[in-house]
Amino acid sequence: MKKLRFRLLIEYDGTDYSGWQVQNGQVTVQGEIEEALTRIFGYHVRITAAGRTDSGVHARAQVAHLDLNDEPDTGRLLRSLNGVLHRDIRVKSIDSVDQVFHARYDAVLREYIYKISAQPTALMRRFVWQLYYQLDLEKMNAAATIILGKHDFASFCRTKSDVENHICNVEFASWYAQDGLLLFCIRADRFLHGMVRALVGTMVDLGRGRIDTTEFRNILAAGDRRSAGPAAPARGLTLEKIFYSKSI
Amino acid sequence: MKKLRFRLLIEYDGTDYSGWQVQNGQVTVQGEIEEALTRIFGYHVRITAAGRTDSGVHARAQVAHLDLNDEPDTGRLLRSLNGVLHRDIRVKSIDSVDQVFHARYDAVLREYIYKISAQPTALMRRFVWQLYYQLDLEKMNAAATIILGKHDFASFCRTKSDVENHICNVEFASWYAQDGLLLFCIRADRFLHGMVRALVGTMVDLGRGRIDTTEFRNILAAGDRRSAGPAAPARGLTLEKIFYSKSI
Repeated sequence: MKKLRFRLLIEYDGTDYSGWQVQNGQVTVQGEIEEALTRIFGYHVRITAAGRTDSGVHARAQVAHLDLNDEPDTGRLLRSLNGVLHRDIRVKSIDSVDQVFHARYDAVLREYIYKISAQPTALMRRFVWQLYYQLDLEKMNAAATIILGKHDFASFCRTKSDVENHICNVEFASWYAQDGLLLFCIRADRFLHGMVRALVGTMVDLGRGRIDTTEFRNILAAGDRRSAGPAAPARGLTLEKIFYSKSI
Repeated sequence: MKKLRFRLLIEYDGTDYSGWQVQNGQVTVQGEIEEALTRIFGYHVRITAAGRTDSGVHARAQVAHLDLNDEPDTGRLLRSLNGVLHRDIRVKSIDSVDQVFHARYDAVLREYIYKISAQPTALMRRFVWQLYYQLDLEKMNAAATIILGKHDFASFCRTKSDVENHICNVEFASWYAQDGLLLFCIRADRFLHGMVRALVGTMVDLGRGRIDTTEFRNILAAGDRRSAGPAAPARGLTLEKIFYSKSI
């Protein structure tokens, strides 16, 4: 039977989820969406995302694809899906795509933003790390420059991760202040498990004066997770955007 | 006994509160802060805010004052207060002020922002009205111009309100698009009960083409709440700023 492929653009508040990927006995974003689709279609529908997000991490524009047996009314499907899903997961759009489109393999860059608030905040509490230290943005940006390009990021990867290699190509990495927040934006071809949070935690150590730029460089070279700083909390991290090779 | 006066700057997510003002049997923001202060000081401390906010309405910078018997360590008090309060209420600063300062009477302007999202959103769900109609911003801005200056806003005030008159001086009112949202910003010397939400609801009726500018003008002139449109949901409304006559 010929299947039809569709692309979903998904936004979620990850606070109450054990990350993207389906796991036994855990409430996950993928699990919730697949369950909603199964309720709507009456058969199990699998969805494939551009990348996993860790427990508690948010997404502004996760991309996923799915295959259906029949051509649906996508406008109606969008309303049905959002009607069934908890309102902390929203499908923003559903588009018909070519069968060769693959949400993961066609993605060439992923962008994450990590947010730190130097002031107590109620409105942003689910999406920022509230951290009242004085941070040296210039030093943190020196570290951001060090990680640019191709590096082995084993020092910033969860040790239990099962990937074949730890090489990532960081295309952009920068700290900047905006609307009273301190933001770290990073774009790379791929990210390892816990990588952004380990990078942010270690860069904050640098910004607080606990380590210096040379030590940061040594941590990256060490290839050992124990050499880096503690992981920054998940709540501050959002998957912002997925870039594709061709306009789709 | 001589009392010492302090000014609080408070941010809150009003989603789970019956508004600012203390009411019997209701969970209110004022009630929660007074309870926290009473736990810390061992005597009942009253706080006076620049203005009440309705049930479900948020504040980015509510201002309040309180009197204490003794000079506290304000840095420590700030940490204690935020330690006791639920994290959807945050005290951002505590400053010693002159005894003549009054959070309500010295406030000359209040600024509210109402947010509408034309797209489904998970991350902003607590703070926007998700409304998928096409809205004519130009027409809505024509209405915003109509309400500028001194007017009787009885048409946009809850009928149960007990104020002496319904005259407000609107200094600024404007609709604009930002970050994929539609925002309405309004500054006035005072606001009536439910006023911004009634204004937004009626302006959306205009933006959808249900009424025209002449009808909007007639609604304002009617002085009757029943003539105006339905109130916009509380979740989209945030008290953004209080302006004071002198730098304090």
